[in-house]
Amino acid sequence: MQTKIYLDEESIPRTWYNIQADLPTPLDPPLHPATGRPVIPDDLAPIFPKELILQEMSQQRDIPVPDEVREILKLWRPAPLYRAHRLEKYLKTPAKIYYKYEGVSPAGSHKPNTAIPQAYYNMKEGIERIATETGAGQWGSALAFATNIFDLECTIYMVRSSYAHKPYRKSMMHVWGAECIPSPSTKTAAGRAVLEKDPETTGSLGIAISEAVEDAAINANTHYALGSVLNHVCLHQTVIGLEAREQLATVDSYPDVVIGSVGGGSNFAGIAFPFAGDILTGKAEGTEIIGVEPAACPTMTKGLYEYDYGDVAGLTPMLKMYTLGHEFVPPSLHSGGLRYHGDSPIVSRLVHDGIITPVSYFQNEVFAAAEVFARTEGIIVAPEAAHAVKGAIDVALECRKTGEEKTILFCNSGHGHFDMTAYDAYHAGEIIDYECPDDLIRESLSHLPKVR
Amino acid sequence: MQTKIYLDEESIPRTWYNIQADLPTPLDPPLHPATGRPVIPDDLAPIFPKELILQEMSQQRDIPVPDEVREILKLWRPAPLYRAHRLEKYLKTPAKIYYKYEGVSPAGSHKPNTAIPQAYYNMKEGIERIATETGAGQWGSALAFATNIFDLECTIYMVRSSYAHKPYRKSMMHVWGAECIPSPSTKTAAGRAVLEKDPETTGSLGIAISEAVEDAAINANTHYALGSVLNHVCLHQTVIGLEAREQLATVDSYPDVVIGSVGGGSNFAGIAFPFAGDILTGKAEGTEIIGVEPAACPTMTKGLYEYDYGDVAGLTPMLKMYTLGHEFVPPSLHSGGLRYHGDSPIVSRLVHDGIITPVSYFQNEVFAAAEVFARTEGIIVAPEAAHAVKGAIDVALECRKTGEEKTILFCNSGHGHFDMTAYDAYHAGEIIDYECPDDLIRESLSHLPKVR
Repeated sequence: MQTKIYLDEESIPRTWYNIQADLPTPLDPPLHPATGRPVIPDDLAPIFPKELILQEMSQQRDIPVPDEVREILKLWRPAPLYRAHRLEKYLKTPAKIYYKYEGVSPAGSHKPNTAIPQAYYNMKEGIERIATETGAGQWGSALAFATNIFDLECTIYMVRSSYAHKPYRKSMMHVWGAECIPSPSTKTAAGRAVLEKDPETTGSLGIAISEAVEDAAINANTHYALGSVLNHVCLHQTVIGLEAREQLATVDSYPDVVIGSVGGGSNFAGIAFPFAGDILTGKAEGTEIIGVEPAACPTMTKGLYEYDYGDVAGLTPMLKMYTLGHEFVPPSLHSGGLRYHGDSPIVSRLVHDGIITPVSYFQNEVFAAAEVFARTEGIIVAPEAAHAVKGAIDVALECRKTGEEKTILFCNSGHGHFDMTAYDAYHAGEIIDYECPDDLIRESLSHLPKVR
Repeated sequence: MQTKIYLDEESIPRTWYNIQADLPTPLDPPLHPATGRPVIPDDLAPIFPKELILQEMSQQRDIPVPDEVREILKLWRPAPLYRAHRLEKYLKTPAKIYYKYEGVSPAGSHKPNTAIPQAYYNMKEGIERIATETGAGQWGSALAFATNIFDLECTIYMVRSSYAHKPYRKSMMHVWGAECIPSPSTKTAAGRAVLEKDPETTGSLGIAISEAVEDAAINANTHYALGSVLNHVCLHQTVIGLEAREQLATVDSYPDVVIGSVGGGSNFAGIAFPFAGDILTGKAEGTEIIGVEPAACPTMTKGLYEYDYGDVAGLTPMLKMYTLGHEFVPPSLHSGGLRYHGDSPIVSRLVHDGIITPVSYFQNEVFAAAEVFARTEGIIVAPEAAHAVKGAIDVALECRKTGEEKTILFCNSGHGHFDMTAYDAYHAGEIIDYECPDDLIRESLSHLPKVR
């Protein structure tokens, strides 16, 4: 029985798929946080390279992947597509379960798929240094890997609590030559202001974003980089779904259900957009696309589709997206990558239009699914990826009931070798099934910005 | 440019290569520790399944890989062969550097290549439980993965200092359902004896071996398993070199130099034996085979080729091998997998016969090589694998001097995602370049067992 489907390196996509070209009407534009007017390219020029700004707004369907970027992607791509024979057997399901495994990248997740082109375009524009933020460290380590490849300096503001408790992601950043600073820091006005009020603060992603953006704005030849949410990030991740579609075609297959976990939305966009595009253009019908999020941060399942800021302080452009309110602070979760109050505007739009179905799960059932996966397929997945595993298992069990032989495709976005404390906590019964109370969400949503 | 060479799953070897068939004269036999007479299969039957004992002593060249084992190997094999274009460019070498990457296995190292067949043969023989020891945890986690696959119970005695300081390997064992006990423990007479003398002991691999062997000997339906040194372990690892040879053949290439790190010798045997066999049978000539070990535990470079025990207590059979003396205690090393006082008898024999050239390196130069590798090729390797990286870099730099366009093949035996503290120590300048003093080795070698 064939377990893995590989493609040769010539099959790494030569173009990214820009789903904006196939939306029935254009996305609502990002709005300037001060003026409330649509953002123009010049607004973003101080912190992003021109090429990424063009991609962010482009309506062109196929956007070329530069040869230099493809050469680097060859270090781990095309990523393998697995048929989960052993999981299917364990579940006694007639469904066929496939998963795309992104844990084979040097950083162990899907994040380098966008870190590499982002570093590349900055390098091409003569930028010498990139500043960014990171929570648990997946994005920070991926960008450190990418900036090292293109000889850029890199400064990463890492949420202080993660910096202290998850030291190994920081160690990776150091190996790849990046500077990693616990946030809040004394390096920025934003950081100093927070520290003055509360010297013992554990930090937050919102504060770290403010620090990185400030760093990029005030330092010469420095840009900012974001690891999720934005359109160009989702664009770069479409290599996941484009490869998977081609891999399935080699066995004359096409998914009935496509599943991914959703934090900011980038790995999900990567696996889902090529198939969502097939639906939008009438090339496929009946394919169900499921986005999985934690019940503790239920952006798509309990949030509103409204304009909101990307950060706590309200300094970023307002984006039309599913949001729990920019002041929403989700509880500490072992799936650090799924704690964002908002979601990718494109993912949000597709949820709003009914192309994507959102579901939410509690933490313990997600870890139980991850353990079933580790014991059948071998791979110990990251807690974020475990949400997609849980989603796939549930569809497969439904098929067992109905007898349907559905083809399920999900994105296994990364390995969990840096997340073993979360598995320990699960075994110790220390993981809490927190469901976000409705009144807390209502309160947070009452502070959405007014849009003219 | 092609970076990775994949094979399809049909190319996973259908037979392991048993180099014993091609040795000009048979290996000196293992000797019983009590009688000094050659060990017979019945001596080993209480702790190993019959099939593994047959493999240990077999003179048959090609030994079939059971179909059930091949099916499981498909979860990660064939492992990719990489051409290290970016490293070559960085080194400005005319050499071609290829590496076989074993970090793609679920446990992140080459160890599952033998853990899977070992668990399989035990299962086939009706054994219900396996006991083993582990130092840093690579072997323990690999066996936990394998016993889980074949529904066996597994108890792992983990050296207490590692148990405390490297908790994440232990977490992996738990995810795969194994029991992990800090050694010395109160579960065995051997453990209790040590604890009585020194309740605060940090343990040692020698003690952990004694506990695991005792556990297997006294518990019903329990066998023992070893992750290196023995002939059957080296045999199972030959999938590495067999695949690599086939992968190189797809680009009409064959290595001039084959390199691996040597602890007990299993990953090295895996990459090297198929090529050493080509030399022994006259199919290849001029291929250099280099085994790399740490200067702090210089078994091949400073030890003697003599009979010695495999463990500290002298309870295991005596093996003819390069040894520093079974009482030799190497200093604490970040390459925990390379701290063994002896080496595989077959590897030792090939060193003795001049087929394999041993070299040793200091820790800091090894980590420097690993960092060059991480910054060029992306992969952060395990400290053990870093020794092979250093060996390959040195040959490539020599080629730069001589202008020779040698083809170098090395085994990248695993990723270093569980070893980031070692990289931190390297960056902090805390790694010590310990060279084992000659008088210490002489003293230890003066206690070799007398063989009649």
